[in-house]
Amino acid sequence: MTDTLQQELYTEISKITLIDPHSHINPHQAASKSLDDILGYHYYTELAHSAGMDKKPLAADFKPRERVRAILAHMNRFDNTVQYQWFDEIARTFLGYQGERLSADDCDTLCDNAEKLMAQPDWEDQVLKKSNIEKVFLTNDFDDPLEGFDTKRYVPCLRTDDLVFHLDKKEVRDRLAKATDLDVGTAADLRRAILKLFDRFTRKGARACAISLPPDFAPQAVSDDALNSALQAARAGNEALDQRRLRNAGTFWMLAEHCRQFRLPFDLMIGVNRRVYEQGVYQGQDLFDQRTSLIQYKELFNAFPDVTFCISVLTSSQNQELASYSWIFPNVVTSGHWWYSNIPVFIEHDARARLQAVPKTKQLGYYSDMYKLEFGLPKFNMYRRILARILANDFVGDRGWKVDQALDLARLVLRDNVKRIFNV
Amino acid sequence: MTDTLQQELYTEISKITLIDPHSHINPHQAASKSLDDILGYHYYTELAHSAGMDKKPLAADFKPRERVRAILAHMNRFDNTVQYQWFDEIARTFLGYQGERLSADDCDTLCDNAEKLMAQPDWEDQVLKKSNIEKVFLTNDFDDPLEGFDTKRYVPCLRTDDLVFHLDKKEVRDRLAKATDLDVGTAADLRRAILKLFDRFTRKGARACAISLPPDFAPQAVSDDALNSALQAARAGNEALDQRRLRNAGTFWMLAEHCRQFRLPFDLMIGVNRRVYEQGVYQGQDLFDQRTSLIQYKELFNAFPDVTFCISVLTSSQNQELASYSWIFPNVVTSGHWWYSNIPVFIEHDARARLQAVPKTKQLGYYSDMYKLEFGLPKFNMYRRILARILANDFVGDRGWKVDQALDLARLVLRDNVKRIFNV
Amino acid sequence: MTDTLQQELYTEISKITLIDPHSHINPHQAASKSLDDILGYHYYTELAHSAGMDKKPLAADFKPRERVRAILAHMNRFDNTVQYQWFDEIARTFLGYQGERLSADDCDTLCDNAEKLMAQPDWEDQVLKKSNIEKVFLTNDFDDPLEGFDTKRYVPCLRTDDLVFHLDKKEVRDRLAKATDLDVGTAADLRRAILKLFDRFTRKGARACAISLPPDFAPQAVSDDALNSALQAARAGNEALDQRRLRNAGTFWMLAEHCRQFRLPFDLMIGVNRRVYEQGVYQGQDLFDQRTSLIQYKELFNAFPDVTFCISVLTSSQNQELASYSWIFPNVVTSGHWWYSNIPVFIEHDARARLQAVPKTKQLGYYSDMYKLEFGLPKFNMYRRILARILANDFVGDRGWKVDQALDLARLVLRDNVKRIFNV
Repeated sequence: MTDTLQQELYTEISKITLIDPHSHINPHQAASKSLDDILGYHYYTELAHSAGMDKKPLAADFKPRERVRAILAHMNRFDNTVQYQWFDEIARTFLGYQGERLSADDCDTLCDNAEKLMAQPDWEDQVLKKSNIEKVFLTNDFDDPLEGFDTKRYVPCLRTDDLVFHLDKKEVRDRLAKATDLDVGTAADLRRAILKLFDRFTRKGARACAISLPPDFAPQAVSDDALNSALQAARAGNEALDQRRLRNAGTFWMLAEHCRQFRLPFDLMIGVNRRVYEQGVYQGQDLFDQRTSLIQYKELFNAFPDVTFCISVLTSSQNQELASYSWIFPNVVTSGHWWYSNIPVFIEHDARARLQAVPKTKQLGYYSDMYKLEFGLPKFNMYRRILARILANDFVGDRGWKVDQALDLARLVLRDNVKRIFNV
Repeated sequence: MTDTLQQELYTEISKITLIDPHSHINPHQAASKSLDDILGYHYYTELAHSAGMDKKPLAADFKPRERVRAILAHMNRFDNTVQYQWFDEIARTFLGYQGERLSADDCDTLCDNAEKLMAQPDWEDQVLKKSNIEKVFLTNDFDDPLEGFDTKRYVPCLRTDDLVFHLDKKEVRDRLAKATDLDVGTAADLRRAILKLFDRFTRKGARACAISLPPDFAPQAVSDDALNSALQAARAGNEALDQRRLRNAGTFWMLAEHCRQFRLPFDLMIGVNRRVYEQGVYQGQDLFDQRTSLIQYKELFNAFPDVTFCISVLTSSQNQELASYSWIFPNVVTSGHWWYSNIPVFIEHDARARLQAVPKTKQLGYYSDMYKLEFGLPKFNMYRRILARILANDFVGDRGWKVDQALDLARLVLRDNVKRIFNV
Repeated sequence: MTDTLQQELYTEISKITLIDPHSHINPHQAASKSLDDILGYHYYTELAHSAGMDKKPLAADFKPRERVRAILAHMNRFDNTVQYQWFDEIARTFLGYQGERLSADDCDTLCDNAEKLMAQPDWEDQVLKKSNIEKVFLTNDFDDPLEGFDTKRYVPCLRTDDLVFHLDKKEVRDRLAKATDLDVGTAADLRRAILKLFDRFTRKGARACAISLPPDFAPQAVSDDALNSALQAARAGNEALDQRRLRNAGTFWMLAEHCRQFRLPFDLMIGVNRRVYEQGVYQGQDLFDQRTSLIQYKELFNAFPDVTFCISVLTSSQNQELASYSWIFPNVVTSGHWWYSNIPVFIEHDARARLQAVPKTKQLGYYSDMYKLEFGLPKFNMYRRILARILANDFVGDRGWKVDQALDLARLVLRDNVKRIFNV
């Protein structure tokens, strides 16, 4: 009976039209054009490499279909993973696959099918419709022109990693100068430049500011004097570690000030160390250190009561902190199941904690984090199945909720909270 | 069938008369007088505030019934939480509520009912009887006179946070002077004062010493000389951070020595940082840092083999340590599911770990931590349901135990261990 | 139906002939001779002691049968633990026990039975056959002669804790000198000595190098100069803490170099602090600090892409890191469920994470860690039951796998991966 209930809930939850509050979609080419676009997703390249594939097929000049074949040929080493399951679901739903286990034998048929189907002019619409997704948030570089696409469907979002962590690089300062007509040498310059960026992004319909942060990052207010020195040192190429920390923290703090001014929620994706596996595949080099704490954000959360911080974390231990911090701080919201935590066993544990302990209005259930639209369906399906199980067991089962009450809760975390929190 | 078994176990477990080994009950006013007493519990004020209620209704001069109305009006933002479920269960069991979802519309009826019912002279007895609770441990300030109540029903317990962490405050030193006739200027004075407190508390029937500790606390033996200097500096208002650490650690160590001398178990509640959310509601400002370890207590556990340390922790990661430390150290006992860990998903995980790995005689299953008696029933019910499920699945199911054997285990962790460990 | 499926999977999984990739078996006396050999396992002595038994019965001159009686007499204090369950299963499977709960009353019968049965000349073979175990990896001291036993059945493995952490002890240096004819005074000497050890061990059929590491250990390359100084200081007995760290790290690094040269996988068992409970029973004194991270091994994993590191960890939080590091690094393999994590609730959680996120070819499902052969059966049974449940729920249930596919996955993690990774 639980299984029947779970199935019923899943069916109904699937009818909720989604707004995907975080992705890496390129709005100019949102859907895939080929199977190579699908299997080029770092989950497949890194799992194939981790399971023994060398990196040659990943070279830019490698023939795309042979790259697909190589990855498919390694899939029988990782077909246990949930990432394989996503691909399996894409193949069945979008590409007419009906076999049992995907392998290199399927390469040509799948590639041919994909190219034919994806060439349809309404492919993008078909994918969104089958996935029941209405809007998708983007992650735009600060110098993205944000032009040539429908910002109602693809909602811009200002990504700020480069500003906070890479202003010591001339290339980034040049991009900033080009985007803002400001050569940033002082804290005051930086403030003016950020103001310009926020102004432009919000005019173009941006609904959030976003950043990913390393495990040891601790925001703090920094004086203009200290920030001036650090910026000068960064430009001169002789920035000390302490100065770098101040510059990072001070720039971050300035972003929070502009989130307040422009009433933009600030997505914080906490805990990733970059380039841990130095020889890893593209986007498959980052890992984490479980030893991080939201206590590092105490000063920030206290200083900006009017800014909504949508927090993503990478581990279940951090999630236990997040559930507690969100239960206490009015401006802390739980957000999705990120990257290494985006695995059923962790999602189920983490989502249960949030649903049992955090006000339901403060939860962004899930986002796709996808690079290509086709991944929305299997990723959200994974979450919808888990949500259906939690609602069936913990709420309808243990607490005697009616099915309609459970579905209201699903609608809130999957749609209504996204609309309200990001004002879409 | 598992469900039937689980229900059967729950019914039988509910017949076990409880001794609640940790609460914040005021024995002179143990039960509530009004709904404001119930919803004034920090869980409701902090969740309402976290979900958007401003703090005006929490002012001392705000009309109590309007405060209740305000909190009820925000409940539809957090009726997913287990804390809502506790209140729902209180309303149904004690206040005749029969509706579907509690809201501001229920305010007047519930308040009227509550005032009428709670005015009954035997209300306190009714609540205890319905909850099947026989005795409740208190948490008494060191200068509590411990008079005017039945110490067989309400068991005194010496709370020592102020002594360890706040002797730098003149107000605390004055209270200590008043309670002991000693003006504490030296380690020797402090020892004499603590001796007096332990003597008075144990004469009045105290059964435990208790303290809550921050994540970075590390007990250590401190010489009288070092403690003298620190105490002098604290009195002079110029205590350095290192001195403060020594004073805290040294005072704590002295308490452990008196626990040994007076054969009192020492309840350590490990991991809370105070005033993290500075503008939070009363008692809704504290959070934690997951980066803490029981290894910090190595020296203590080794130095006091004759003192039983009843340990509460705040996260599942710490619980994994606790299960292991309690399995190895004869003097380490697992104690309840504390505060931010007192959520079904964490309780189930943490309790399973303990029941599978720690000698059953060393487990204090649950305590209420309540401020008002009415919370004993829903909180213990939550635990009893989870315990019934664990016993049904892990013990009767997976290990083939008989139902009676499972119930013996429940009786041990809910009652017999409390009696034996605290000698009541 | 899930239960039936689970049972079916368990039955089939039990038919997979095992290779146990990590144990502490003494190949000259692999099976027990008496019940004292069984209950002398530190799990029983430490649980009995933790539950109140004093250490007198553990003295070398205590009559073995009376020691057994004493431990059995304390079992009713820890018969809830999974360790009790292992013993219960041994008693039923190997010793003809048919009662309900083991107690001191069973002492004489069990002891008599054990002595009679274990005296059979083919007892060892019987035990291996009933357990369906074909080969067992050992953990050999560097000066173990590795002679007088069948290295096809009992596969040697070079344990290196002494080399990395105890070369400051004259006794260890003397043992090393005896084993290699080298008096190690310099980095070059040490390299020559390690070469000799690897050469001897691999000639004798060794299939792995192994070490257990404390939570704060961080491998790093160390120059010969620095290592020379540290070794000299260690010999002179005036080694500074920094020097000790360099010596430990540098010796460890040298071992990794030889693993590369000799193509031996390196088993890293990460996270144990030795002698935390100083008065604990033999082998019952070690605990952990949850605050450790695989990021400490970043340099190592990058520097040795050709060495397979088989990683064991002690907590579920570390396991979440391990699942991610193994998903990214081609040379990182997940290995078993170690010590304090070897408890059903943790195994289930940790194994699910690995099975959902790590390439299936990179997982060593389980090892016994046993000291006596009789423990292989109940420990592997515990794992097999959990694996059957995970396969039934997550794979056949949620993902629609066929039973045969699930069993192939079981065979891989229990047998085929061991064969391939360790080249047996």
